[in-house]
Amino acid sequence: MRSSSATPTTTSLASPRFITDMIQNRQVLLASRPQGAVTEQNFRIVDTPLRAPHEGEVLVRNEWLSLDPYMRGRMSDAKSYVPPAKLDEPMTGQTVGEVLESRDARFKPGDRVLTPLGWQSHGVARGDDLVTIDAQRAPSSYYLGILGMPGITAWFGLKEIGQPQAGETVVVSAASGAVGSVAGQLAKIAGCRVVGIAGGKAKCDYVVNELGFDACVDHRSGRLYDDLQAACPDGIDVDFENVGGDVLDTVLRLMNGHSRIVVCGLIAEYSLPEPYPHRRLRSILVNRIRMQGMIVFDWKDRYGEALAPLARHIAEGKLKYRESIVDGLDNAPRALIGLLKGENFGKQLVRIS
Amino acid sequence: MRSSSATPTTTSLASPRFITDMIQNRQVLLASRPQGAVTEQNFRIVDTPLRAPHEGEVLVRNEWLSLDPYMRGRMSDAKSYVPPAKLDEPMTGQTVGEVLESRDARFKPGDRVLTPLGWQSHGVARGDDLVTIDAQRAPSSYYLGILGMPGITAWFGLKEIGQPQAGETVVVSAASGAVGSVAGQLAKIAGCRVVGIAGGKAKCDYVVNELGFDACVDHRSGRLYDDLQAACPDGIDVDFENVGGDVLDTVLRLMNGHSRIVVCGLIAEYSLPEPYPHRRLRSILVNRIRMQGMIVFDWKDRYGEALAPLARHIAEGKLKYRESIVDGLDNAPRALIGLLKGENFGKQLVRIS
Repeated sequence: MRSSSATPTTTSLASPRFITDMIQNRQVLLASRPQGAVTEQNFRIVDTPLRAPHEGEVLVRNEWLSLDPYMRGRMSDAKSYVPPAKLDEPMTGQTVGEVLESRDARFKPGDRVLTPLGWQSHGVARGDDLVTIDAQRAPSSYYLGILGMPGITAWFGLKEIGQPQAGETVVVSAASGAVGSVAGQLAKIAGCRVVGIAGGKAKCDYVVNELGFDACVDHRSGRLYDDLQAACPDGIDVDFENVGGDVLDTVLRLMNGHSRIVVCGLIAEYSLPEPYPHRRLRSILVNRIRMQGMIVFDWKDRYGEALAPLARHIAEGKLKYRESIVDGLDNAPRALIGLLKGENFGKQLVRIS
Repeated sequence: MRSSSATPTTTSLASPRFITDMIQNRQVLLASRPQGAVTEQNFRIVDTPLRAPHEGEVLVRNEWLSLDPYMRGRMSDAKSYVPPAKLDEPMTGQTVGEVLESRDARFKPGDRVLTPLGWQSHGVARGDDLVTIDAQRAPSSYYLGILGMPGITAWFGLKEIGQPQAGETVVVSAASGAVGSVAGQLAKIAGCRVVGIAGGKAKCDYVVNELGFDACVDHRSGRLYDDLQAACPDGIDVDFENVGGDVLDTVLRLMNGHSRIVVCGLIAEYSLPEPYPHRRLRSILVNRIRMQGMIVFDWKDRYGEALAPLARHIAEGKLKYRESIVDGLDNAPRALIGLLKGENFGKQLVRIS
């Protein structure tokens, strides 16, 4: 319970000010909404003063910023599952940071926390919006990836919607990415034949040689259908879809009867000026496909069910994981633009400090 | 068990021949596969001799032929859930007929049976492929409609995939048709707000005034989105999709979070020269829609679960039903062409004799 005396005025007078007085907060603001592809002109970098935390709040120094494909959606003001990012405010996003000052008894300076503070070097968050992470169990950046939203997304999407059975063929697009790499490895652990789709030879080699997929097909080859058909001689039973567009339309041609499509992401479609025209929807009828969209928040009360086995698989060496790190908040716009073009290789992070 | 003496030669010698000798069997053959829209030139009408039934077979005089949208698919040789109809053979289809002669102890002359004999006035079927119907309980033609595949399709599609809850909004396209009319009325019985989509004012009036839907929107009005939005002020929770194309794309814009789409038919797309380009697939992701294709055969061991309540609802006057009847097998091609254009009004039947 917050005390009734915890009004902003009282609090800031009572609070030691030296930390926040010394800090300039670097922020990357959403300056304009993109038309089609994101450009650096959609962002603006500013330094702003930082205020002290009020009662119930925590001051955090951000160390890692997660970059994710969903951010393209937040930059638009089209209807989506959450409100869009606001113009002239820091771009939304998850970070991991260090607590500098706390007015919430659950946190103390030095703690590592998962925050919704977005694209800024520091920030003041409500304690209720923070989650303490165990930086001893795994590197703190992992809580933005394999032990965070992407890993949990892969877990519930595969288990709850894809429902792969041992011996079935599972296709995963964006196979080297933060979600796809985990989904595919989990399907291998479940005893499936797993075929990745990725952009370029380097990613495909990594998916097969490092992640242990049975095959990986390069969607840039110009012969995706033939290659995918060759890699899936028994057709496709589960598609874990992160890409959409031509990739999804090609996959639809190879889906088996009573197969499942997990619609986790459609990164190839987010920046198109006009919606992509899908021409293979009839396969859903003919093959009685179950196609289902997902957002990890739908399982927010059950994250623990995913995190425990994910951590165990990592500890046992059964789950490999790769990060793509950009240094400095100023480089976050360029890194997001690259991510949306598939230029990243593994989970995209920005090292802030 | 068939006796070892039941070879064709033995059987036909032993069998009384007078019935089949007197009958010329009128058949409508598939003469060519349509390119785009079906034309009468895709069919050829012939009279052929009829052979006597062998042991285990039954000679049937067809009385009713069912015409259904799925037949467009059978006329093509594209991959589908069943093999295509064969050229120069009678078009496939279900009939109801009278047993004239039986070499199967389960059937006797005068029985009414459901058959897979297709577009012909008579035929010899294996007893295993026939189902005796109770023409006392309901008119025999009902077993091709509300008490047959269309009614059972509506039942399982709605209950197993759509899963409507009382108070939810259910949209049904081709709402006056054999499947749609039943699906919508079942959703009303389940306590839902039910909105039909149909072609033209007469059908829409029927759907609201006779079938008891809460509203019906004319997809030919040129303002389908606005009209549908007005009829669904709380969005759409279940879409029972029989049409596809523009209708499905418009519905996708109004689907609620965690809504369901039953993909039962895509009649607007079957005869297009190129696959329809669906531009609203992203709604599946944003709204976490579950979209699932269905074929009634998937529940073939459970038809009784549907037939008992359907018959009860009919007896209680809770399910209205309308047939669109064309006289004479020679008119079947024209009637199918009309059905594929939405010119029928209710379940389309051909009265053969």
